[in-house]
Amino acid sequence: MKVTEKLSKFVYETEFKDLPPEVVHEAKRSLVNILGVGIGAANHESVDIILDFAREIGGKQSNTIWGRNEKADILFSTLINGFTSHIMDFDDTHLGIMMHPSAPVAPVIFGIGDQMGLDGQELLLSFILGVEVECKIGKGIYPHQHEYGWHFTGVLGHIGAAVTAAKLLKLNVSQIAQAIGLAGTQASGFAEMIGTMSKFFNSGKASMNGLLSAKLVQKGFTSIENIIEAKRGFAKAFASSKHDLSKITAGLGKEYEILKNSYKPFACGIVAHPSIDGMIRIRKKYNIMPDQIEAVECIVHPYVPVPMGKKDPQTGLESRFSTYHCIAVAFIDGTAGPAQFSDARATDSKIIKLRDKVSLTVKNDIRKDEAIVKVKLSDGTIIEEHVEHAIGSIDNPVSDEHLSKKFQNTASLTLSNSKINKLLDLIWNFDKLSNLELINANIVPGSK
Amino acid sequence: MKVTEKLSKFVYETEFKDLPPEVVHEAKRSLVNILGVGIGAANHESVDIILDFAREIGGKQSNTIWGRNEKADILFSTLINGFTSHIMDFDDTHLGIMMHPSAPVAPVIFGIGDQMGLDGQELLLSFILGVEVECKIGKGIYPHQHEYGWHFTGVLGHIGAAVTAAKLLKLNVSQIAQAIGLAGTQASGFAEMIGTMSKFFNSGKASMNGLLSAKLVQKGFTSIENIIEAKRGFAKAFASSKHDLSKITAGLGKEYEILKNSYKPFACGIVAHPSIDGMIRIRKKYNIMPDQIEAVECIVHPYVPVPMGKKDPQTGLESRFSTYHCIAVAFIDGTAGPAQFSDARATDSKIIKLRDKVSLTVKNDIRKDEAIVKVKLSDGTIIEEHVEHAIGSIDNPVSDEHLSKKFQNTASLTLSNSKINKLLDLIWNFDKLSNLELINANIVPGSK
Repeated sequence: MKVTEKLSKFVYETEFKDLPPEVVHEAKRSLVNILGVGIGAANHESVDIILDFAREIGGKQSNTIWGRNEKADILFSTLINGFTSHIMDFDDTHLGIMMHPSAPVAPVIFGIGDQMGLDGQELLLSFILGVEVECKIGKGIYPHQHEYGWHFTGVLGHIGAAVTAAKLLKLNVSQIAQAIGLAGTQASGFAEMIGTMSKFFNSGKASMNGLLSAKLVQKGFTSIENIIEAKRGFAKAFASSKHDLSKITAGLGKEYEILKNSYKPFACGIVAHPSIDGMIRIRKKYNIMPDQIEAVECIVHPYVPVPMGKKDPQTGLESRFSTYHCIAVAFIDGTAGPAQFSDARATDSKIIKLRDKVSLTVKNDIRKDEAIVKVKLSDGTIIEEHVEHAIGSIDNPVSDEHLSKKFQNTASLTLSNSKINKLLDLIWNFDKLSNLELINANIVPGSK
Repeated sequence: MKVTEKLSKFVYETEFKDLPPEVVHEAKRSLVNILGVGIGAANHESVDIILDFAREIGGKQSNTIWGRNEKADILFSTLINGFTSHIMDFDDTHLGIMMHPSAPVAPVIFGIGDQMGLDGQELLLSFILGVEVECKIGKGIYPHQHEYGWHFTGVLGHIGAAVTAAKLLKLNVSQIAQAIGLAGTQASGFAEMIGTMSKFFNSGKASMNGLLSAKLVQKGFTSIENIIEAKRGFAKAFASSKHDLSKITAGLGKEYEILKNSYKPFACGIVAHPSIDGMIRIRKKYNIMPDQIEAVECIVHPYVPVPMGKKDPQTGLESRFSTYHCIAVAFIDGTAGPAQFSDARATDSKIIKLRDKVSLTVKNDIRKDEAIVKVKLSDGTIIEEHVEHAIGSIDNPVSDEHLSKKFQNTASLTLSNSKINKLLDLIWNFDKLSNLELINANIVPGSK
């Protein structure tokens, strides 16, 4: 089966008008989410390191870096935007293959689309096609790549970024296939990198390599045109003989993968989200002071305490792995965004007092997206909240308003409120943009 | 077993004075070979493509490109030098793991060593350590990576380049391990790329990525320190459960892998080399004119006609896969270098007349490095030459003089004879260089 050719034809032939409205809207939701978390992480020390090296290389300062006043050449700006998107671990997740589709792809529309002065519809189309192709290929090799330790966002992101770049550059079918080939022969990224900067480097490098591939093929660099299905090609390498090529082309152009994208409402491990959701609901429904609470019991899926069982976190980073901390901030702050996982919040006496009252009870018949939160008050009252499907799960997606609020929360770490609100308006109307100028003007802090 | 740490300690602790003299000498042989084939391929059209993109990026023109007057920034110069080395498929081969060790590693000593003004001993030491570590790791995963289609030169080259860069930058043990980690999470490269520019792009990209990794770690970028042996790390990813970590550290610092390096004497598939060797010997021993030859029979290993069985090649590229053509040029030209595989040579009537008289007889009891060449003259005389071990095989290595001549042949495609001879003298005395200035002055054509 000529998988790579079929994908390339699909990419070449699809026009904006072919996209269902819900697909276009989901792409905007993905962009609101990814740009917010990318902007919010712009001052991470890893960015300074890359910028320092970029200055040593001395390339043209041609491209915008989200949330920074410095510019960089198209390779380094794409690298940086591709990894700040993934720093908070707060980016989107395709729930079918557990990949983060936007981080490697979105930077490419800024890198190439900006230089070419393309309009919002062309940019959205190219973004959607990159996400589509990387996720379809992912379906053909999921979950077997896990056995070998590959980080899907890094591996598949190479292809997604190359496809988006190829579409923006208006390459023909053969060139698109070759861009996929050249990106594919660079595709890599290990899941073991967790806890170091190399984890999010994976997604940035995928973005940069994908863009590089399409640019070189445009200039005449050659590659093979069948890398996905080749006897010793991409599917074989990343999933051994367990890959299923038929899944890659099934529903192409009909069942859009971006519709299975999800957006974390809380900045911590997804398994704690049902409990957080329940506690926020209780806070909203009842007028309770923290001191009135005698005990909180969360009945959860058995997997919850494994990654999220830290009883007494000492740092912000540790608090991300503590359902106890999550419950406390959910009640006291009413949310669990990046600000709730700071060192200060992890060591706040009010938080500690409440989290010490929290217990977890695991039950096999509770689903991963479900939780029962029981609060016992000092007067003996028991309040119970049953979360059937946590917010952000496939059965209970976050609303557009929620995404706007998440954007405001994360971007506020870097940008002024007026810029944030202008950006939100621009992104929700992405298909009406005539180019990226206005977004670029507002996506950097500017003079303070 | 802490494999990555052991390798990193070995790299950190080893000094030039620890190296046996034969190891230093083999490194010079490797450099004579790799620089010759790299210089010779400098005008390949793929170089123009990359240079065009490098100019678009606009980085500092700080680094020398072998065989070219243009300069490029340290990333693009390393990329280009790393793939011109591999274009002719005439670079060195570690016969234990069938990898090309120098192509990804040698460019790094030019990239970083030049900027730091390091002397010949430091450069040789770093080169040797990069080759050593990539080949040792290769032994731990060979040959199972083949099942998945990985191109060893691309995959392992990432680590080799990172190690060489880390040693040049004088990183500490933890940093060396992290540079290996950051390079490892970018390691990739498919063997399927054969026949396209992406094939040699693999080795160039490995070189560039390895250098990038060490530079970023030096500036504070973080990675894991155990990527080789991690549960879902490098060895697992590239050879599944069939890897053997003990092979990686066995003989470290005692049995140097570079001593198993070999250098192709002829610019075609290695299986035809015994027949070529035999025909050149006959040409030297006897005073025969081509017209006197009635028939040539080569008795060879059964694998020879598989990759090298093209009867009637029409182009230079096709002639590389024709043992018949090889025999003809071996007799008429007395060699089988890149010049013998041009379109002109493939269609030369004298060559065609002779190659039509050649036949191959396969025998199961003939080894891969063995051949019997029988020439029947028009007067009925039969001349027989039995090549026990072809030149360039592990039992019959090419001489230093042969490597010098190979260098002259390949480099002459780009450089003047006076520069070539100066370069040869400098490379054979690499350990006495106080920096790379003289080499850089002679490795580019200059004004013509």
